[in-house]
Amino acid sequence: METRRPTTPAAEEILGLYFPVLDHGFVALVDYMGSDEDVERAARVSYGYGTRRTSETRGLIRYLRRHRHTTPSEMVELKFHCCMPIFVARQWIRHRSANVNEVSGRYSLLPLLFYRPEADDFQAQSATNRQGRSGTSLTAIYADAIARWERVRELAGAHYEWLVSHDVARELARIDLPLSTYTQWYWKIDLHNLFHFLSVRTDAHAQYEIRAFARVMAGMLKRVAPLSFEAWVDYELEGVHLSRAELAALRRLLRVNGRDLEAVPGARLAEKDLAALGLSRREIDELLPKLAAAPSVEEFDLDLAAARVPDHFARAMEAAVPRVDRPK
Amino acid sequence: METRRPTTPAAEEILGLYFPVLDHGFVALVDYMGSDEDVERAARVSYGYGTRRTSETRGLIRYLRRHRHTTPSEMVELKFHCCMPIFVARQWIRHRSANVNEVSGRYSLLPLLFYRPEADDFQAQSATNRQGRSGTSLTAIYADAIARWERVRELAGAHYEWLVSHDVARELARIDLPLSTYTQWYWKIDLHNLFHFLSVRTDAHAQYEIRAFARVMAGMLKRVAPLSFEAWVDYELEGVHLSRAELAALRRLLRVNGRDLEAVPGARLAEKDLAALGLSRREIDELLPKLAAAPSVEEFDLDLAAARVPDHFARAMEAAVPRVDRPK
Amino acid sequence: METRRPTTPAAEEILGLYFPVLDHGFVALVDYMGSDEDVERAARVSYGYGTRRTSETRGLIRYLRRHRHTTPSEMVELKFHCCMPIFVARQWIRHRSANVNEVSGRYSLLPLLFYRPEADDFQAQSATNRQGRSGTSLTAIYADAIARWERVRELAGAHYEWLVSHDVARELARIDLPLSTYTQWYWKIDLHNLFHFLSVRTDAHAQYEIRAFARVMAGMLKRVAPLSFEAWVDYELEGVHLSRAELAALRRLLRVNGRDLEAVPGARLAEKDLAALGLSRREIDELLPKLAAAPSVEEFDLDLAAARVPDHFARAMEAAVPRVDRPK
Amino acid sequence: METRRPTTPAAEEILGLYFPVLDHGFVALVDYMGSDEDVERAARVSYGYGTRRTSETRGLIRYLRRHRHTTPSEMVELKFHCCMPIFVARQWIRHRSANVNEVSGRYSLLPLLFYRPEADDFQAQSATNRQGRSGTSLTAIYADAIARWERVRELAGAHYEWLVSHDVARELARIDLPLSTYTQWYWKIDLHNLFHFLSVRTDAHAQYEIRAFARVMAGMLKRVAPLSFEAWVDYELEGVHLSRAELAALRRLLRVNGRDLEAVPGARLAEKDLAALGLSRREIDELLPKLAAAPSVEEFDLDLAAARVPDHFARAMEAAVPRVDRPK
Repeated sequence: METRRPTTPAAEEILGLYFPVLDHGFVALVDYMGSDEDVERAARVSYGYGTRRTSETRGLIRYLRRHRHTTPSEMVELKFHCCMPIFVARQWIRHRSANVNEVSGRYSLLPLLFYRPEADDFQAQSATNRQGRSGTSLTAIYADAIARWERVRELAGAHYEWLVSHDVARELARIDLPLSTYTQWYWKIDLHNLFHFLSVRTDAHAQYEIRAFARVMAGMLKRVAPLSFEAWVDYELEGVHLSRAELAALRRLLRVNGRDLEAVPGARLAEKDLAALGLSRREIDELLPKLAAAPSVEEFDLDLAAARVPDHFARAMEAAVPRVDRPK
Repeated sequence: METRRPTTPAAEEILGLYFPVLDHGFVALVDYMGSDEDVERAARVSYGYGTRRTSETRGLIRYLRRHRHTTPSEMVELKFHCCMPIFVARQWIRHRSANVNEVSGRYSLLPLLFYRPEADDFQAQSATNRQGRSGTSLTAIYADAIARWERVRELAGAHYEWLVSHDVARELARIDLPLSTYTQWYWKIDLHNLFHFLSVRTDAHAQYEIRAFARVMAGMLKRVAPLSFEAWVDYELEGVHLSRAELAALRRLLRVNGRDLEAVPGARLAEKDLAALGLSRREIDELLPKLAAAPSVEEFDLDLAAARVPDHFARAMEAAVPRVDRPK
Repeated sequence: METRRPTTPAAEEILGLYFPVLDHGFVALVDYMGSDEDVERAARVSYGYGTRRTSETRGLIRYLRRHRHTTPSEMVELKFHCCMPIFVARQWIRHRSANVNEVSGRYSLLPLLFYRPEADDFQAQSATNRQGRSGTSLTAIYADAIARWERVRELAGAHYEWLVSHDVARELARIDLPLSTYTQWYWKIDLHNLFHFLSVRTDAHAQYEIRAFARVMAGMLKRVAPLSFEAWVDYELEGVHLSRAELAALRRLLRVNGRDLEAVPGARLAEKDLAALGLSRREIDELLPKLAAAPSVEEFDLDLAAARVPDHFARAMEAAVPRVDRPK
Repeated sequence: METRRPTTPAAEEILGLYFPVLDHGFVALVDYMGSDEDVERAARVSYGYGTRRTSETRGLIRYLRRHRHTTPSEMVELKFHCCMPIFVARQWIRHRSANVNEVSGRYSLLPLLFYRPEADDFQAQSATNRQGRSGTSLTAIYADAIARWERVRELAGAHYEWLVSHDVARELARIDLPLSTYTQWYWKIDLHNLFHFLSVRTDAHAQYEIRAFARVMAGMLKRVAPLSFEAWVDYELEGVHLSRAELAALRRLLRVNGRDLEAVPGARLAEKDLAALGLSRREIDELLPKLAAAPSVEEFDLDLAAARVPDHFARAMEAAVPRVDRPK
């Protein structure tokens, strides 16, 4: 259709394409409002005619990001259609600065689709990160665990079907479905809050399953507002925050000389020196990797070949809904 | 302890008492900031010395409520500790203007406590309200349904224990626990947003289980800010909203005569007359009960005898957590 | 440009047109995301293919509005460019659920444009509504008042020019500009929160000057989402809220008889009867007009002939900025 | 009064004391909910009995701050009564995650009190920071500027008095008061959002006048939640954020060796090397001061001797309200 609104070709290209995530989930970009130019336009409160060079837009966007002037990026909005396991939805919903419409299990029958982790992702509790996974797969018990899960799901699914076929209120029938059951929603958020979501949810400390969704959404955002995305990667995602004590440590090791930065000859800080600066053992554990070799940078590019039409998922969902003959 | 902050004796009396809700849940008022006087003080932006008569405070609070001047009621804040089934938590969390800290199943082992509906509350899908219960119990299949539920829970609970005893990451082990599993959180909200929560969640269209929580919280609020509570009952909870067409209907039936209101002699509106005014069939279905006999008013008074000390629930929770011997 | 996003022809028609408001202000619709169909799509969490009849969309939207299911309307977003006096901006900014980028008086020189009320709008303090105008113009002193205002503005403007020409920091130079000085911003909000803004700001209790802006924005919204707009008019704007006591009064005057509504023969409530039901004198004052003859309904249609191109205002602003020769 | 709520002696000591800010403004801590222990309690979702050692609470709070787990700090709330010039209020109100009740110029007569900058703070536009002050006082024109300001204020004040004495609606009479006029409000915010406010508003880029308020509020917060305050200073206020390119620069100058950090012998980065890493000239300008000598740390301690009783300000305000004999 024709529009006088700002459009972005790279975003238009993926609009309405459904990208698979995990075994039954998906993310689709349904609509977007604005792009990098609209961030600039809001920052300048300009009248929107005339043209700016891309290099000027880039400079401004990077300046805004660096100085945490975040309100102009609130002027861009993205709307997604997403399908994810309930335990993922429960983490996701904690981001309150978004608009959500979730399918209702009180009103609709739910499809009996459940998330099953891949063998590689089936891991032990991490010993260091007290809430995540260790990084190595528990291969020996994987088959056994899956078989047990399948039994829970079969029983829970059969029970759900039995209850709704006996006309039990859906709001009650659903209460013993497992947290691995898929749900879906529309989710709309502005660029500023989406960056915060992505910073938290692409992080290595986030649960693997929600990271899978966040990575696809990052790829979508990269197409909607590429300069803002680049600035976010450079200043947030791949940047680090240093505390007062960490900064004090660095000041012992390097110095400013005119417009040059130079290493202080012979300077060295052993663990006890860091401790003397106020760093706890745990903080030292966290500081060293920050300064070690740079991690490889994730590109977040979408695999267009993986995208599906909406109908693909609509039919899979429909097929998984219990068939019910209500008692007369 | 001594404080110079405003206190309310009726609220102090229940502070830290844990009120049971459903079979394993609870609500406790943990802290509160301000009372009716603080709503007035904010509305007047006054210096807080001197005293006002209660009747004046009541008049102002009712005026504010009537005219939807809601910002002064944002100056009162309540903090709760709550324990509820996950499917209730999922409805509750939709109220975004609140602060939440929920127990983490990634970090902690979860107690295996599940919600079991009482026979009276085990009902068929409503034919009229498309998302709720019919109002009559499905007695015939209750025992069977409970037995089936128990099997799901036993299996899901046993599987959870098996997984964590094999050191599977907790964030994965939990994913097949049912939505009936209890969780808990701290929840903090201001008076204005709490009123909105209570309006939505004490309503007959809300799911029975969340209404049970909302009613207890209404009783707590009644003790924190009784005049604001009374105004909410009179203007919101027991008031009604009339549309333009409904109002047009009323204007055919009654008229203003000086300072009197009087019925228009012989006036009558049949269903077709209401339809001619623009009311759909469904709207007529909704209008008539609004004007029929007044419902009895719920008092929302707390039963202090039911309250428990925190330890009561803390021990029950602790006892329901799986005992785990991690493999060496 | 081509887009796969949902578009609305009536909205496209006004996109980027600047509508004058008051003597120097304006409102322009800069962008929009979604329309009525997107409210329905979110409410159904549907896949967006296939088509629905408009009558079905209308029925759903009216149902949602009537039952205050407001989250689907959060899925539509509007972005405006607005220019208004600072005292209007100060009322407007109180609506916190919006995104704002205002021109900065620390960074930019401000145009010396000031709002001057028309003779008709120059009125005495209302005796009944304790914060508004009486409704009748103070003709006798209007010319005198304007002359006095002009002197304040001339002096304040001259002083601002003097300060910035002496290189005084702009953040300081501006502090004695009057509240009537025009400012401008980009303002973005979702449909749900915009309806709330319009309910409050088109109301007769709102200050005349902000109502002038709200009325134009209502006209814009009517083009973006006409069915939602109609439902808002019917249920919110032209509806009324009745308290428990007011409802009790109505129940004395009319009754439900099967599917009919009828006036109770001979029923009459004098002021003392209303008082006995709990209505204060002030509430009676407020109730009677609600039930008297229906007010004529405002249509909120935009006058397209009044619209200007952006350049019109951009040039006027530019011309009003002080010319400054900074001291070398 | 007696309370079972958590109290903090250092906060109780200043409760209700009014601290002067600028020439006529003030900040008072009116109420608070919770302290450091409540942050911990929320993070652990604990039952609140038993005791933790302060060192454990400190460790947890620092961990939460370091890892940006901010929701537990939303469980502490502070309420302030503040009086500030309108141009300061306009910056302040941009922080939307707060509750506000401002005195209404539509309802009340406003006191004619205006902010007058001290000679030291009367400075030229900064050449580097494009929106702030240069740092050096414009002594030569200060007296002249003040005299001019006084004339604007006298005229604007006299005009306001004339208008209200002729019964002009207050909402109109006020529109030519200058932005330097003092207003006041109640303002309530949670700890997490207050930290954000303080980070932005104690910063050297914030306007001097709002920094004066932020510093006093920081001193109040230090008394309400000292461990959280200390963590904020160490990790936020005195910490720095490094971008990907800045981090790359550091990695050339120092290296991790086991548990030691050491300077790379002979390493040096000239401006062109920094540019080659992707740093713009402006970024280099910003990076060097971050790594130069540590700034002295501000303590934010309150001067209790400066505090006044509420009556002190109440009387000053009252005295500055125009005396009006309304025409009969």
